[in-house]
Amino acid sequence: MLASAGPVIAGDIDTDRVMDSLRALNRFGERGGGMWRAAYSEADMACRAWLAAEFAAIGLTVALDGVGNLIGRDPASRQAVLLGSHSDSVPNGGRLDGALGVVYALETTRALRAAGGLPGIDVISFGDEEGAFLGCLGSGSFAGRLSEADLDAARSRDGIRFRDAQAAAGLAEHPRALLDPARTIAYLEAHIEQGPRLEAEGIDIGVVEGIVGLRRQVVHFAGRADHAGTTPMAMRRDASAAMFAFATRVLDLMPVLASPRSVWNIGIVKAAPGAGNIVPSSAEIMVEYRDTDEAVLDSMTAAIRDLAVRRDGLGGVGVTVEAAGRLRPAPMDPRLMGVIAEAADAAGASWVKMPSGAGHDAQNLAASVPTAMIFVPSIGGRSHDPAENTHEADIRRGARVYCDVVRRILA
Amino acid sequence: MLASAGPVIAGDIDTDRVMDSLRALNRFGERGGGMWRAAYSEADMACRAWLAAEFAAIGLTVALDGVGNLIGRDPASRQAVLLGSHSDSVPNGGRLDGALGVVYALETTRALRAAGGLPGIDVISFGDEEGAFLGCLGSGSFAGRLSEADLDAARSRDGIRFRDAQAAAGLAEHPRALLDPARTIAYLEAHIEQGPRLEAEGIDIGVVEGIVGLRRQVVHFAGRADHAGTTPMAMRRDASAAMFAFATRVLDLMPVLASPRSVWNIGIVKAAPGAGNIVPSSAEIMVEYRDTDEAVLDSMTAAIRDLAVRRDGLGGVGVTVEAAGRLRPAPMDPRLMGVIAEAADAAGASWVKMPSGAGHDAQNLAASVPTAMIFVPSIGGRSHDPAENTHEADIRRGARVYCDVVRRILA
Repeated sequence: MLASAGPVIAGDIDTDRVMDSLRALNRFGERGGGMWRAAYSEADMACRAWLAAEFAAIGLTVALDGVGNLIGRDPASRQAVLLGSHSDSVPNGGRLDGALGVVYALETTRALRAAGGLPGIDVISFGDEEGAFLGCLGSGSFAGRLSEADLDAARSRDGIRFRDAQAAAGLAEHPRALLDPARTIAYLEAHIEQGPRLEAEGIDIGVVEGIVGLRRQVVHFAGRADHAGTTPMAMRRDASAAMFAFATRVLDLMPVLASPRSVWNIGIVKAAPGAGNIVPSSAEIMVEYRDTDEAVLDSMTAAIRDLAVRRDGLGGVGVTVEAAGRLRPAPMDPRLMGVIAEAADAAGASWVKMPSGAGHDAQNLAASVPTAMIFVPSIGGRSHDPAENTHEADIRRGARVYCDVVRRILA
Repeated sequence: MLASAGPVIAGDIDTDRVMDSLRALNRFGERGGGMWRAAYSEADMACRAWLAAEFAAIGLTVALDGVGNLIGRDPASRQAVLLGSHSDSVPNGGRLDGALGVVYALETTRALRAAGGLPGIDVISFGDEEGAFLGCLGSGSFAGRLSEADLDAARSRDGIRFRDAQAAAGLAEHPRALLDPARTIAYLEAHIEQGPRLEAEGIDIGVVEGIVGLRRQVVHFAGRADHAGTTPMAMRRDASAAMFAFATRVLDLMPVLASPRSVWNIGIVKAAPGAGNIVPSSAEIMVEYRDTDEAVLDSMTAAIRDLAVRRDGLGGVGVTVEAAGRLRPAPMDPRLMGVIAEAADAAGASWVKMPSGAGHDAQNLAASVPTAMIFVPSIGGRSHDPAENTHEADIRRGARVYCDVVRRILA
């Protein structure tokens, strides 16, 4: 499609090999049923060494960069489609998050390399997608979005410096690899949905239309601690009562402002000092909301700030809103989305356009090269958990559609 | 009043002595501006030894009982009015909570004992009112409401056994004293308001009409943890959203069900696991409400339980309500309330009938003997804090009214 006059690409993915490679990859870091491949751990690095050998065995030129990105490049091509995902996991994670996309990339490349010609295929497993040190660290570095100072400052939740983990993994002297948009004609990533929608709707393939942007606002309520027995109701400044009223209004407003792709959550709720007989002096909520459309996120932000400025019926409690996080939406490439839909149709697979509510390495590449993502169903929507799974038939179907998408891109 | 044909009682309280005795009592346990007289501590026991000497010096027969109750009895009377409060404090407490009522009792008895005759005056400082081991432990024991097993089980927040503290304070061999309703014709306790109302309304004296009863309900919300980015809104069971809706309804209903004396508070608010990107799987609030009328408390309890049974609009989240505390209201004696009002009028002091929103030793005695409480204003309503205070003019005025009430009871 992108190369107007290339050879017809032959070869098809071997889905038995997909299942075998998934098992082989998941020998690394398996403990008590869960996967423990935190970035730069022994298991993560051993897994990358195994992948490096697999990449080399199919004729790719392999490099491991300074942040753990493992890249296999087609030595015979000046241009290539880039396929991949990540092979690190959350602590006690599942067998498919990241691994599925890496194995689809490996086995598709193995199947199609015989075809040769230009453009070719490069394969990547990004480092630290799960944010042991920084979320999507490897792809952020690859896309040129992380400075040396950012890496100097990065620390794990336990306070371990990224620089120390990097040195311990033997990566300190490795240069960082950078995305070359002149070489990379497209980036394609397959992933489990990590949500319940495809399974619930009985759909085989998710055509990701964008990775949602995210905003976080911390809303703080400043009241006054008073004895809850002796202070008349009219004389109180009750931070928790104000919080309940405010949160209820936010949850009432969100559906009005939402697009069909919006989601929101109040996941952090606190009130202090936290005694039954003391009127709370302070309270706090974190409101998080996501959409593929910045304008929708802007309207939600404005509504929250407006509620805080008006303070209607909050009993004299002070309200402040502090922005606590922002990720911009990453729209996927519409032409590549069309190719995925065509490949699904050709395979007799049902598909639906949907946003990705979770972050992925693809969002770091989308600004520089045409980028697309394919989702396969997650059983019960579970992920980041040993129970994470996808029916084998869905894994095999997804592999065939994915391989066909690559064939169509290269054709 | 209660003795229809007694001698006219002479003598008036020396309010300079009231101020001096407050200072003398507060030498014990003073540290960095706050009072540290936790029950059975060295400072608490030293303070009781000083009080014992004061009681003896004015001719009372003194006994220290097994739970730290210090009692001075008129040796010449078969009947007596009982005056008192408590001399222990919360950690880093103020100079008046408890101490004021003990000093009013001491100085009133000193002033009036010269008058002699029947009935006389007994004075008491209860042990552990502030609940280092159990709230109102001393008066509960005195009123016959605590078994030996209750005391065996009592522990401090730090896990120290009451029995160990009792032994360390040298009280293990002391018998427990019991209220004798045949002897005690009335119990009178003065206290700071511990709330802002008297000061805010510019009123000199609070005539307590009852110590409020209290109920506590812990409401638990059982949802399901889901990824807040990937789970469609309609497929969530969001425990915190259900909590906000429920709490808002409770706070909307309470004013409808309330009497003018009702207060309520949601002082404990929790949501787990407490991450911005995870839909809360569980949430909890504690609803506390107080009134002098059991029927009002019953209607509030029924309303909360009804909301939990109906579960309207709570998005499939499970709701359970667990009773977590109950204190019955303790109405004060109407005839004694009338005496306080007469004494206030005679002193040119303004007064108002009001509930006590906090618990007091008086609530343990009210079921057995005619009981009354007099409140003086608290500056800013502060208490359980070194900033707790009352204007000296209010302390002196309260002392004169209190002494006159005792004179009128004995007359």
